Amino acid sequence: MSAFTIKPSEKANRTVNPIRAIVDQVLAGPPSTCPLERIPLSLGDPTHFGNLLPPDILTTALKESAESHKYDGYVPAFGCPNLRSSVANSFSSSNVTYTPDDIVVASGCSGALELLLTGLLNEGDNILVPKPGFPLYEVIANSHGASVKYYNLNPEDNWQVDLKSLEDAVDSRTVGVVINNPSNPCGSVFGKEHLKDILSVCEKKGVLPMGDEVYGNMVFEGSEFFSLAEVSAEMGGKIPVVSCSGMAKQYLVPGMRVGWLMFYGEGLDALKGGVKNLSQVVLGACHLAQQASSVALDDGCVEFKKELNLKLQTQANAMASSLQGCHGLTIIQPQGAMYTMVKLDPKKFKDIKDDIDFTKMLLDEKNVFALPGTCFGIENFFRAVYCAPKEMLEEAGQRIREFCEDHKA
Amino acid sequence: MSAFTIKPSEKANRTVNPIRAIVDQVLAGPPSTCPLERIPLSLGDPTHFGNLLPPDILTTALKESAESHKYDGYVPAFGCPNLRSSVANSFSSSNVTYTPDDIVVASGCSGALELLLTGLLNEGDNILVPKPGFPLYEVIANSHGASVKYYNLNPEDNWQVDLKSLEDAVDSRTVGVVINNPSNPCGSVFGKEHLKDILSVCEKKGVLPMGDEVYGNMVFEGSEFFSLAEVSAEMGGKIPVVSCSGMAKQYLVPGMRVGWLMFYGEGLDALKGGVKNLSQVVLGACHLAQQASSVALDDGCVEFKKELNLKLQTQANAMASSLQGCHGLTIIQPQGAMYTMVKLDPKKFKDIKDDIDFTKMLLDEKNVFALPGTCFGIENFFRAVYCAPKEMLEEAGQRIREFCEDHKA
Ligand SMILES: Cc1ncc(COP(=O)(O)O)c(C=O)c1O
Ligand SMILES: Cc1ncc(COP(=O)(O)O)c(C=O)c1O
Repeated sequence: MSAFTIKPSEKANRTVNPIRAIVDQVLAGPPSTCPLERIPLSLGDPTHFGNLLPPDILTTALKESAESHKYDGYVPAFGCPNLRSSVANSFSSSNVTYTPDDIVVASGCSGALELLLTGLLNEGDNILVPKPGFPLYEVIANSHGASVKYYNLNPEDNWQVDLKSLEDAVDSRTVGVVINNPSNPCGSVFGKEHLKDILSVCEKKGVLPMGDEVYGNMVFEGSEFFSLAEVSAEMGGKIPVVSCSGMAKQYLVPGMRVGWLMFYGEGLDALKGGVKNLSQVVLGACHLAQQASSVALDDGCVEFKKELNLKLQTQANAMASSLQGCHGLTIIQPQGAMYTMVKLDPKKFKDIKDDIDFTKMLLDEKNVFALPGTCFGIENFFRAVYCAPKEMLEEAGQRIREFCEDHKA
Repeated sequence: MSAFTIKPSEKANRTVNPIRAIVDQVLAGPPSTCPLERIPLSLGDPTHFGNLLPPDILTTALKESAESHKYDGYVPAFGCPNLRSSVANSFSSSNVTYTPDDIVVASGCSGALELLLTGLLNEGDNILVPKPGFPLYEVIANSHGASVKYYNLNPEDNWQVDLKSLEDAVDSRTVGVVINNPSNPCGSVFGKEHLKDILSVCEKKGVLPMGDEVYGNMVFEGSEFFSLAEVSAEMGGKIPVVSCSGMAKQYLVPGMRVGWLMFYGEGLDALKGGVKNLSQVVLGACHLAQQASSVALDDGCVEFKKELNLKLQTQANAMASSLQGCHGLTIIQPQGAMYTMVKLDPKKFKDIKDDIDFTKMLLDEKNVFALPGTCFGIENFFRAVYCAPKEMLEEAGQRIREFCEDHKA
């Protein structure tokens, strides 16, 4: 017998991504017998299909940084000074002023969220997160022995926050609220007045608003993106806000792992100090990638972003039109980001009892892979990502339409 | 009054680098009045002086990866498959076989250590760490509400482990031992028999040996590097070993933040699973940097490494000779890595009471900055890094010699 009994820590055991188990259910069973090629509508990686490339200036800056050998060395733990300045400049506005000191760089927006929540949460605390929402908030909270409580997004109301559910969810151990705008998985974008209402609830209850704005500015015609910090500033600036963002989606380089936190308003110095302490353990993101990100942010890449939004909007529309009027489905027109949540009504189908059934059978019969709403905390929806080329999305729509006809009640 | 009282978490408050406070003491007081230019012997960043550049193949691979756009996207949380294969291949030997599944990539060797210790430690646990040693182990352990206990390295015996102190330090809450070879701050390299003795103590006590081998193979003539896993294999392979390493030092790219864990031997599946769970939160290192690292590891960069070791040895010798016979100092010839610990005898000086005094006054009077041994847990030594060009190291040696003469008792 071995002298060693090596067990993982409680924290490691607590750190489980709930999506995994759900996806495993969808993928369980024999491989798809469908002769058609797989269309994955599941992937949050916008670079997967090769139709969406980062701006040239970013790629060039990375190559030049490597060539110069000026960025091979260690970088300060809370980020390369150039990048912190670039973030501070490009996210400041007439109302909101960030200094480089307000910015902490991390390994992607995920790393930024992990730093922030680690800096904030004690065992037994909770944060409020949207339902449906991105599961990472819950993974991180659980890993700390903290937890999440949910507030509802209302699909009948363009996925706006049900403010009463938000207010009711706050309890004595609630330390903050995550507000993800534009939204994964909903593809919705909050208006300014709605954001004011959300911040008012946070103020009333004394809980920190935390903005996950990784899709900020990825919005379509008719919608406008307002950052939480700007909205707080317009309300007088008394509500502090910590937001995270990064290069992954807006610049199409999720693999670079460059993200950041931005601290706005008063009362945050202790938290910021704590987060900076934490950042010193791992020393953040790749220096070369930070420098390249700094160059791209300084440039602004205005044309690139305009084109990206246009492409995404075209793809979103293609997806939505091809599903419009599809038996048993309800389309909610996406306003931004890269996602749409499609509602399905099991009563309209003869042999589909829920979203897990739906996505599992769709995969088997039509080789189209979409994630069930259950992954994001809501039943009887599926999430479709519209990063694939237009023609592929139309093909997917066509297959889904046939699938729904085949299973009509 | 604000509605918000936002306090950092206990974990954030516990995460403090002890070096910082000590260095602040050294740097306190008015700026150096010395007209000579500053020579920093303090920096663990080998790229600082521009005399040590990464291998061309690594830089070229990074540029090509960026250009190809094949590595812009997300990478699996425990690392790019190419890199995991490359690590597995290049660290396998006739005795030790790693598969890609045994490798977990992280944000630098620091990130690897953080993953491993987070996966292992519960509140109240402890790990054994060398004294003197690299402070990060303690920072991470404390951040988890765990702690470190020390075993001694003996300066009279080429900084070998005092085996009795190792065995005595194990208590019922000890879960592992960090073995850093080659050593920061000592510049020492353990022989094979000594490593066997260390592993035997671990086996006897049932505590996991964890190798910090980030300086593996950076050894000088007369010394040879043996990995803990190889030594365990030679002993029959019954002692499991988890080791970490990375690109930072051996390939001169600390800013890339690419490191990894390697799991060897039986009984580690649960820990490996826990570590892989943890790795999914932040999604590790820059994909482009991982791909470039894979190319460099596959190549092996044999000539590059030979030259690097030769340069470091030349610089180490220049440093050592220029300090040889210096009043009040004892030189221990370094065997590898990038560091040497110089002993000082306060009784030999008229007005220097300890290492903090020594480094503080040396900075003030001669503008040479070295870290006091206290930073690494041992008094009355200072650590000198020999990454600077030979001439600069000789100049530093000359200034230290004068300084010691000036303060002779
Ligand atoms: C809402 C949301 N936040 C954060 C992230 C993480 O982004 P990053 O890749 O920068 O870690 C994602 C990624 O899909 C996301 O959808
Ligand atoms: C002994 C030791 N381990 C680990 C590290 C961390 O290396 P990395 O830069 O890959 O995080 C260092 C860096 O100085 C070190 O000296």
